[in-house]
Amino acid sequence: MPTKEIVKLASGHDMPLVGFGLWKVPKETAADTVYNAIKVGYRLFDGAYDYQNEREAGEGIRRAIKEGLVKREDIFVTTKLWNNYHAKEHAVPMAKAQNEAWGLGYIDLFLIHFPVALEYISPEKRRYPGWWMDDAQNIISPAKVPIRETWEGLESLVDSGLAKSIGVSNFQAQLLYDVMSYAKYPISSLQIEHHPYLMQANLIRLAQEHNIVVTAYSSFGPQSFLELAPDFRDRAAKVDLLFEADVIKSIAENHKVTPAQVLLRWATQRNIAVIPKSNNSSRLAQNLDVLKFDLTQGELDSITALDRGLRFNDPGHYLPNHPLHIFA
Amino acid sequence: MPTKEIVKLASGHDMPLVGFGLWKVPKETAADTVYNAIKVGYRLFDGAYDYQNEREAGEGIRRAIKEGLVKREDIFVTTKLWNNYHAKEHAVPMAKAQNEAWGLGYIDLFLIHFPVALEYISPEKRRYPGWWMDDAQNIISPAKVPIRETWEGLESLVDSGLAKSIGVSNFQAQLLYDVMSYAKYPISSLQIEHHPYLMQANLIRLAQEHNIVVTAYSSFGPQSFLELAPDFRDRAAKVDLLFEADVIKSIAENHKVTPAQVLLRWATQRNIAVIPKSNNSSRLAQNLDVLKFDLTQGELDSITALDRGLRFNDPGHYLPNHPLHIFA
Repeated sequence: MPTKEIVKLASGHDMPLVGFGLWKVPKETAADTVYNAIKVGYRLFDGAYDYQNEREAGEGIRRAIKEGLVKREDIFVTTKLWNNYHAKEHAVPMAKAQNEAWGLGYIDLFLIHFPVALEYISPEKRRYPGWWMDDAQNIISPAKVPIRETWEGLESLVDSGLAKSIGVSNFQAQLLYDVMSYAKYPISSLQIEHHPYLMQANLIRLAQEHNIVVTAYSSFGPQSFLELAPDFRDRAAKVDLLFEADVIKSIAENHKVTPAQVLLRWATQRNIAVIPKSNNSSRLAQNLDVLKFDLTQGELDSITALDRGLRFNDPGHYLPNHPLHIFA
Repeated sequence: MPTKEIVKLASGHDMPLVGFGLWKVPKETAADTVYNAIKVGYRLFDGAYDYQNEREAGEGIRRAIKEGLVKREDIFVTTKLWNNYHAKEHAVPMAKAQNEAWGLGYIDLFLIHFPVALEYISPEKRRYPGWWMDDAQNIISPAKVPIRETWEGLESLVDSGLAKSIGVSNFQAQLLYDVMSYAKYPISSLQIEHHPYLMQANLIRLAQEHNIVVTAYSSFGPQSFLELAPDFRDRAAKVDLLFEADVIKSIAENHKVTPAQVLLRWATQRNIAVIPKSNNSSRLAQNLDVLKFDLTQGELDSITALDRGLRFNDPGHYLPNHPLHIFA
């Protein structure tokens, strides 16, 4: 039986199981991309301060609302707090500024983007620090801000009505347990890199056992990284594309769907939300259409058997001198 | 050049690089085992509440001191706080009781054994809960105790003079960063499972970059687990013993040492402390004698190439319904 399109978060709010990911969507085209995605049927948009397109994505949503295509409450917006703003005195003003950039009154789901605090840099000095500080690629120093302080910052967003639900991204098991030990509001979602090459079965089990909805990013594995800078790309270029893997292709043929749809269904059928991105309109529609067929248990298992613990999104991979070892 | 026998901890105190591990040493023989180990030359003893032999190990040390073999300050005692006593009101009294059991005035290094809090059970009700609660093997529930509370409990031991240095065991990177963000006293040591089948290179780099001395447990890999209960043992029985691995045997022949000595030197040469255990007196001496020869870089690398991310000490492996996913 197909999984339903909506999942209930621990906060009590509903979240669509399939959404549109805004990572790497250029800000020049983001408003149109989002507007068109709404026309195709997307209702969840997954953004982040670091993606540098919150204002434009919000503009696309506002246009669709203005034209009567959707109402605000039909749309689900996720965004994320970047590493340099973990301290409470920065987190809350930054969240307010992000909310104003979206221009939709509130954020549906606000996440801590990475479980690492880096030194504060004012947006005036450098608007999007990323993992670097300056053009010489000097790396920003870690800051001594406990995760609890940042989490309590997010909780204050729920209290003020700015955010409906809160969660985390790129967290390991031990830190999840720790947050759960002091959280006043539940962790509604854990967003992680998740594809057949990086299964993370125990982490997913832990999250789902605690009613934390897992959202997968980079569902297509290496594919998501080939469009990036060379150091980033090289790691992805070393392995077979999942779209070309025999097991994926053969399952796609069985069901008369695309390999991308198989990869997305492998996740959604296990109640894992997905946020694919595409700039191609027919693929945009295909990616949304991944709840109407079911893989057999044998098919799910044969995809899972591709697991090789291969992570692509780790700053340690493309910043060899990066001071943080995030996934160790 | 051989690594020196003593490492300086971040606390300012010295720690021997090679010690004797008390895990699985029966309490009936622990006093004699420890006393004999001191005679052979051991100065560091790695214990834990959960090993159920603190009193007897302390008795062996006290006997050696009484006979003038060593002085208290020649000996380095490590012990660990078990999962059921993470709350501050339990951690401090438990640490005091452990210190009294050792009977040596103070503990050199006090560690948090696992980064997970389980519900308190009074020692009167069940003295050593392990990972279970009762004889029906009902599993103890997680408790909502933040790691910060437990860490601050350990810090109070430094303030009171009960512990000279403090640290953690079985922690992942993200939780280490978090502890470092609020620690008043430094994390002096991180004790982890570490052998050629489970390298954890990034975790070790992280620790060493932050002046945290890594202590390896289960240096011989599967060997350490074969003597345990069947469920535990099975995982170890599936892989080749490191003692039998061609690369280890051939390096041992090169240097006219034993495979065990090669495995221990592979760690100590990279400034990783080791705590082997043996009930055989000639092996006891051999294990201590692992600082006087050096492996070539090529030899170190060929041992490291055995890495396969294979962890043996995870309660999830031998307790299939265990509620905690500690290493995910």
